[in-house]
Amino acid sequence: MENITLSDTERIDDLQFKGLRLIQNTEHFCFGLDAVLLARFSSPKDNDTIIDLGTGTGIIPIMVSGLCGAEKIVGIDIQDCMCDMASKSVKLNNAEERISILKGDLRSPQEMFAPGSFSLVISNPPYIKAGSGIVNEYSQKAISRHEVMCKLDDVARAAGYLLKESGRFAIVNKPERIVECFDAMRKYAIEPKKVQLVYPKSDKPPSAVLIEGIKGAKEGLRFMRPIIVMNEAGEYTCQINRIYSDNGEDIFR
Amino acid sequence: MENITLSDTERIDDLQFKGLRLIQNTEHFCFGLDAVLLARFSSPKDNDTIIDLGTGTGIIPIMVSGLCGAEKIVGIDIQDCMCDMASKSVKLNNAEERISILKGDLRSPQEMFAPGSFSLVISNPPYIKAGSGIVNEYSQKAISRHEVMCKLDDVARAAGYLLKESGRFAIVNKPERIVECFDAMRKYAIEPKKVQLVYPKSDKPPSAVLIEGIKGAKEGLRFMRPIIVMNEAGEYTCQINRIYSDNGEDIFR
Repeated sequence: MENITLSDTERIDDLQFKGLRLIQNTEHFCFGLDAVLLARFSSPKDNDTIIDLGTGTGIIPIMVSGLCGAEKIVGIDIQDCMCDMASKSVKLNNAEERISILKGDLRSPQEMFAPGSFSLVISNPPYIKAGSGIVNEYSQKAISRHEVMCKLDDVARAAGYLLKESGRFAIVNKPERIVECFDAMRKYAIEPKKVQLVYPKSDKPPSAVLIEGIKGAKEGLRFMRPIIVMNEAGEYTCQINRIYSDNGEDIFR
Repeated sequence: MENITLSDTERIDDLQFKGLRLIQNTEHFCFGLDAVLLARFSSPKDNDTIIDLGTGTGIIPIMVSGLCGAEKIVGIDIQDCMCDMASKSVKLNNAEERISILKGDLRSPQEMFAPGSFSLVISNPPYIKAGSGIVNEYSQKAISRHEVMCKLDDVARAAGYLLKESGRFAIVNKPERIVECFDAMRKYAIEPKKVQLVYPKSDKPPSAVLIEGIKGAKEGLRFMRPIIVMNEAGEYTCQINRIYSDNGEDIFR
């Protein structure tokens, strides 16, 4: 923990995966299960070049660094404070050589990267549609949850620009926005190929949808097995417990 | 069973729901669980006027007649032999006053009905996309399973024509075609509102998707709880067993 100073409201959480840890600010938006599922769903490979758009705490780059040996993992965020905190988490995990946290606006990716710079683009974008709900201020929480600073279309456009041909785009969103996700992806030549719904319990509507698109691919969508988070007793299912195991990939098939 | 003659290959099946029975031809396409789920998913009401497009054995009108007290339930099919068999099933259930089986081509609904004649349109259309798979002949089985005689677009166009404003369209299809279903519905002013995935087992990809659209409605999609058909032991789940009970509607919420 050399050179890492935490503020009063920051705490270190153990990710319970390969010894990885994450700094979070209890007053800001904290990462959820969706982000962990998304990292795993994105199936990062050793030879991937990876970027996470709107990285927040950096949870996705950090999880990804544990899931594969990729050497170039980038997380960008528009908020200075999030970049600072995510950078500290990268340091905490001694991953500075593989993970770069950059301050940047995903609405203008061309200012930061050449087109086709990545083989895998991941994003856990704000879920709440612009104009819905009550947003009192441009607070850190609001920026992370509402489409204050970026819209689904911005995320898809950035992915279309950043991905090389046949590169993958992995996104999580509310199931209710699945059609918008498909439309936004197709608009930027990313074809939706894989869909997986996350159900909090087996008798509840899904709370999230994971979507993988492939740049320039042919039409052809596959639905995966359901992810069911809790059993009837309110405990995590074996499926969820396996996310944190070394060979948890098969829950995404 | 007065006046009902079965051919050598026809048999009477007990639907195990309110004493309803169905004649099927073992050499043709026999109804599956999807049709039963669709009938229930469509939530027919006593004051609905209902049509089933491509009714086949008549399974859907017959199930629907048991689910609600609607007085006008129509099933149309392009195949003479299916209309004959479905009509015999209607008679077998003494439902001639409520259910009409008509021979008709859903590609030209205007030849049979005035626009806006129905408040609920149901269809379990051929799943297999035109041009996919091998179809050797225009056999009864092929017509029921492949898009030989009608395409998804034809079904949606017919629904758009037949539905009155705010009327419901309930359809089942392969999950892989969910986007096509949405697109086809929207093309004819039917907004997808409700989606439910059917998983054969909780560790398997979904085998079917149930979609309800509403004519002229605003955007806003709701995903429902998963339908899981079999448990780990390979037996029907309680959820499926309840389809056949009087108050099984809640599995669709």
